[in-house]
Amino acid sequence: MDRKKVAKATTKVISSYLTYQAVQTVLEQLTETNPPLALWLRSFSGRSILQDGEVYLLALLVENQELAFRIMTVREYLIEEIMEDLPEMVFHEIKLKNSQHRKQQLEKLSQLSVTEPRLNFESSSE
Amino acid sequence: MDRKKVAKATTKVISSYLTYQAVQTVLEQLTETNPPLALWLRSFSGRSILQDGEVYLLALLVENQELAFRIMTVREYLIEEIMEDLPEMVFHEIKLKNSQHRKQQLEKLSQLSVTEPRLNFESSSE
Repeated sequence: MDRKKVAKATTKVISSYLTYQAVQTVLEQLTETNPPLALWLRSFSGRSILQDGEVYLLALLVENQELAFRIMTVREYLIEEIMEDLPEMVFHEIKLKNSQHRKQQLEKLSQLSVTEPRLNFESSSE
Repeated sequence: MDRKKVAKATTKVISSYLTYQAVQTVLEQLTETNPPLALWLRSFSGRSILQDGEVYLLALLVENQELAFRIMTVREYLIEEIMEDLPEMVFHEIKLKNSQHRKQQLEKLSQLSVTEPRLNFESSSE
């Protein structure tokens, strides 16, 4: 496991996801202030290019620079807003889910043990 | 924009992505130590369930508990390894890309201005 490589790849995923969230925010705003433009942006963003935030923005810059700049500003604002809490939140989410999975699995196994006491649970892996 | 909602959704995305990265790490290890199991895990993980880390792990727990526990341990290790640097990295990535997009757009516009000095660049949006 290359720590730096994982950190860099994760950074790109978060950046793209916050671009997506910024698009949702701008779409909500436009639905109130400029419904035809909201409709256009929704149609433009429905294409698969939103998978990669930078590819999406490059395409949008060609079609509507003002909207692209607005989405860029919003995603910058979003990361500023959540960056402080994010590491702890992810850490606790993973710890919590792992602990839930382990607990549920143990409960399942103990229920099976009651009904079939001689069952062998050793994994066949490795 | 609901800050808490965005932070929570982003947390889930990162958790799922680190589960994917943990699967890649375990796959690399198994390719060395147990190629048939690596093949099996690759085939299992190729299904779309890897989009959601928890759904993926729940399915894997049924098929191979040991591998699921191993992936859970690796993703916990991964977040511990990268969590400290992550916020700054995402913040700088977004700032950098935004600045690059703005610069490139200005360069494009200034090139157009030279060839077509009277072109009106006002956006038609809103």
